[in-house]
Amino acid sequence: MKTDRKELMRIVIEPSKDLWAELVKRPTQDFTKTERIVEPILDKVKRNGDKALKKFIREYDHVDIKDILISQEEILDSSKEVSEELKNAINSAKENIKKFHEAQVTKDIEMETIPGVFCSRKSVPIKKIGFYIPGGTAPLFSTVLMLGVPARIAGCEEIIICTPTNSEGKINPVILYTASLLGIEKIAKVGGAQAIAAMAYGTESIPRVDKIFGPGNQFVTVAKQIVSRDSVAIDMPAGPSEVLVVAGKKSNPAFVAADLLSQAEHGVDSQVVLVSKSKTFIKDVLNEIDKQVKRLSRRDVVLKALANSLAIQIKDKFVIADFINEYAPEHLIVALRKPGIILQHVCNAGSVFTGDYTPEAAGDYASGTNHTLPTNGWARSIGGVSLDSFIKKITYQRISPEGLQALGPVIEKMAEAELLEAHKNAVSIRLKYLKENGPS
Amino acid sequence: MKTDRKELMRIVIEPSKDLWAELVKRPTQDFTKTERIVEPILDKVKRNGDKALKKFIREYDHVDIKDILISQEEILDSSKEVSEELKNAINSAKENIKKFHEAQVTKDIEMETIPGVFCSRKSVPIKKIGFYIPGGTAPLFSTVLMLGVPARIAGCEEIIICTPTNSEGKINPVILYTASLLGIEKIAKVGGAQAIAAMAYGTESIPRVDKIFGPGNQFVTVAKQIVSRDSVAIDMPAGPSEVLVVAGKKSNPAFVAADLLSQAEHGVDSQVVLVSKSKTFIKDVLNEIDKQVKRLSRRDVVLKALANSLAIQIKDKFVIADFINEYAPEHLIVALRKPGIILQHVCNAGSVFTGDYTPEAAGDYASGTNHTLPTNGWARSIGGVSLDSFIKKITYQRISPEGLQALGPVIEKMAEAELLEAHKNAVSIRLKYLKENGPS
Repeated sequence: MKTDRKELMRIVIEPSKDLWAELVKRPTQDFTKTERIVEPILDKVKRNGDKALKKFIREYDHVDIKDILISQEEILDSSKEVSEELKNAINSAKENIKKFHEAQVTKDIEMETIPGVFCSRKSVPIKKIGFYIPGGTAPLFSTVLMLGVPARIAGCEEIIICTPTNSEGKINPVILYTASLLGIEKIAKVGGAQAIAAMAYGTESIPRVDKIFGPGNQFVTVAKQIVSRDSVAIDMPAGPSEVLVVAGKKSNPAFVAADLLSQAEHGVDSQVVLVSKSKTFIKDVLNEIDKQVKRLSRRDVVLKALANSLAIQIKDKFVIADFINEYAPEHLIVALRKPGIILQHVCNAGSVFTGDYTPEAAGDYASGTNHTLPTNGWARSIGGVSLDSFIKKITYQRISPEGLQALGPVIEKMAEAELLEAHKNAVSIRLKYLKENGPS
Repeated sequence: MKTDRKELMRIVIEPSKDLWAELVKRPTQDFTKTERIVEPILDKVKRNGDKALKKFIREYDHVDIKDILISQEEILDSSKEVSEELKNAINSAKENIKKFHEAQVTKDIEMETIPGVFCSRKSVPIKKIGFYIPGGTAPLFSTVLMLGVPARIAGCEEIIICTPTNSEGKINPVILYTASLLGIEKIAKVGGAQAIAAMAYGTESIPRVDKIFGPGNQFVTVAKQIVSRDSVAIDMPAGPSEVLVVAGKKSNPAFVAADLLSQAEHGVDSQVVLVSKSKTFIKDVLNEIDKQVKRLSRRDVVLKALANSLAIQIKDKFVIADFINEYAPEHLIVALRKPGIILQHVCNAGSVFTGDYTPEAAGDYASGTNHTLPTNGWARSIGGVSLDSFIKKITYQRISPEGLQALGPVIEKMAEAELLEAHKNAVSIRLKYLKENGPS
């Protein structure tokens, strides 16, 4: 392996497989310190509820808040502050997301596995859910859509949004507009770890929820991790966002550069990876990045993210596919003229974008697919947020006397072999009754 | 609330709602001590691989093992040690489980959300999975079926089973028989936290897996929790097994007693809850328990579990349903003549059994539904193991030049409002190119 450290990104030429483990490692974060800050916050909210929330809001957001929940007027007012153009864009995105997630509805199952043994399965919405929506400099109203649309299709009964206010105690109007578009009216003016605690344990004004969704900074991430150890589900183990782009000589280096930059602007810990057969193409992309990055206002963040990033030359397409599976990227862009081999062989990725005109940004906002996706290698085992994230599937069974007479001996035999006597007895006592009395 | 502490179980009469939070609390375990024991085990296996495994096998299982993986001969030999009757029972159970889980296959999605924007979703099996199967006194071959059958339907490529041996270095033959019935031939003679470490990190003889399934003692449970913080998925947060039975005057107290006992025999930390309108019925069930428990060889375990358990009188059926939702039982048995109201209103349960002839043991072994279910209140947010537990769903998108011309402005508008300039630029640069050059 030849490694060439350019200013912008680390370039690696034909790395041998024994080096892959190091290459696929994400820039890690040590959360031990964060845990020590977050744990007392969680404790205080658990014990003191709204009082603790207000104290933290004063301390961290520097505002005094009377009511933690937003009023109907504030929601109505917000609509006036959003341009018609942006409203239309949000509506278009919402329709696409709705179409794609409605197609995910599955039929309930009902069957008789053997005569008299009736088994079924029903999708049941998770009753109470909470969304954490970052506010401040990056008001992620698109996440309100990505979570709210499938939650509505699933039929979740109660939805609460927690989002921090600005220094005037106001929530970003676009977040409010998007929430009200989805009929979500319970919105709490609280951010950070304290918001996660409120949703996990409940306070006077915020209901305890069954599952918490949404991205956040390291304090939010760690808080979600901690509360999830104790029977509150979370959407996904969170990590910095990432993209892997496979592109060839016939791809457009300016487009590829733009896609890499759009990922890099998420934060200094984001990672972007470019894989290509062609070293010339890699150089072209780096030159394009150099040009484009200068025009970006967040270029400091972008440059730091790029410094954590990789451009890798691999000549064999099958080896590229293997490398992608090892990396298991959150987003995979296949900008090749002939993406077939890659698409067929890649089995570990969150969401896949193909062709020259499919920027990741399309999936981030508006094409219809979800943007909450597995990072940090989790794509090996889990998919992104989908309708199923808002549903649990309950199984049911009912056995007739005849059914138990047929199945009972099977159960008795197996329970006996597992040395579970009382399990066997729960069947035997019924079979004996049926033998003596007949079906009641 | 009147509380009456009987010898066998705690009886509670019409508890008011503000007391429910206390009643639904499971007997908790403090894992801090266990963590301190487990962490160094995980570390050693991570660092020293097979060598560490062999050392732990010597230390904990008191056997010297040459090969960690079982040989083909050992698998073939095991078949001779299993009776034809038990083989037939296992085969019947397998067929039912297969039928029910095959019905869970979902169609892939392909759609054009707007003209030129092609979105799709494909189910992809998780490539490498591992099962932990307890051995020793309770050889849970039924769990091999419950995990192996859906894994085979999903198409998982590589399956490894870790299970401890007996003091002669042998794995329970029924576990081996069941595994070979499913074509699982990679079986490692290792149990405990060290087995979880081996599957999470990989050793010379055990491959690193993407997801770990299966129940275990507290060391296994804690090990699964710890490794799952770091990109190895696990099937489910584990907790002691539990059942809630709703029964009325017309139910059979002997059947109800047998069901409660079959749950209680799992371990001293199991919990069983009986809810009934009728105090007389509760007394009848307790009398039956008293009678039946005497005949059980594991009665010491059972009595300890019962001491952690509850019998609750609640007269109103709707209130019963509310209580069940608050408790969110792993198993719910509705032994009422008219289960309608309960079935309609209960939304938090792992698996539901209705009627007089549907013991939980049916679902534990052979009816077709899965027995790996959410405990400790997790039924509020997650369902049991299903085909989906072995699959991840990857989304795909491809946008045509025309599609991007239509969708692009929506993305630009939204990215701009979220202050993500480079996201916007990834679209603008393409739209500009299309305007100047036309579709390439």
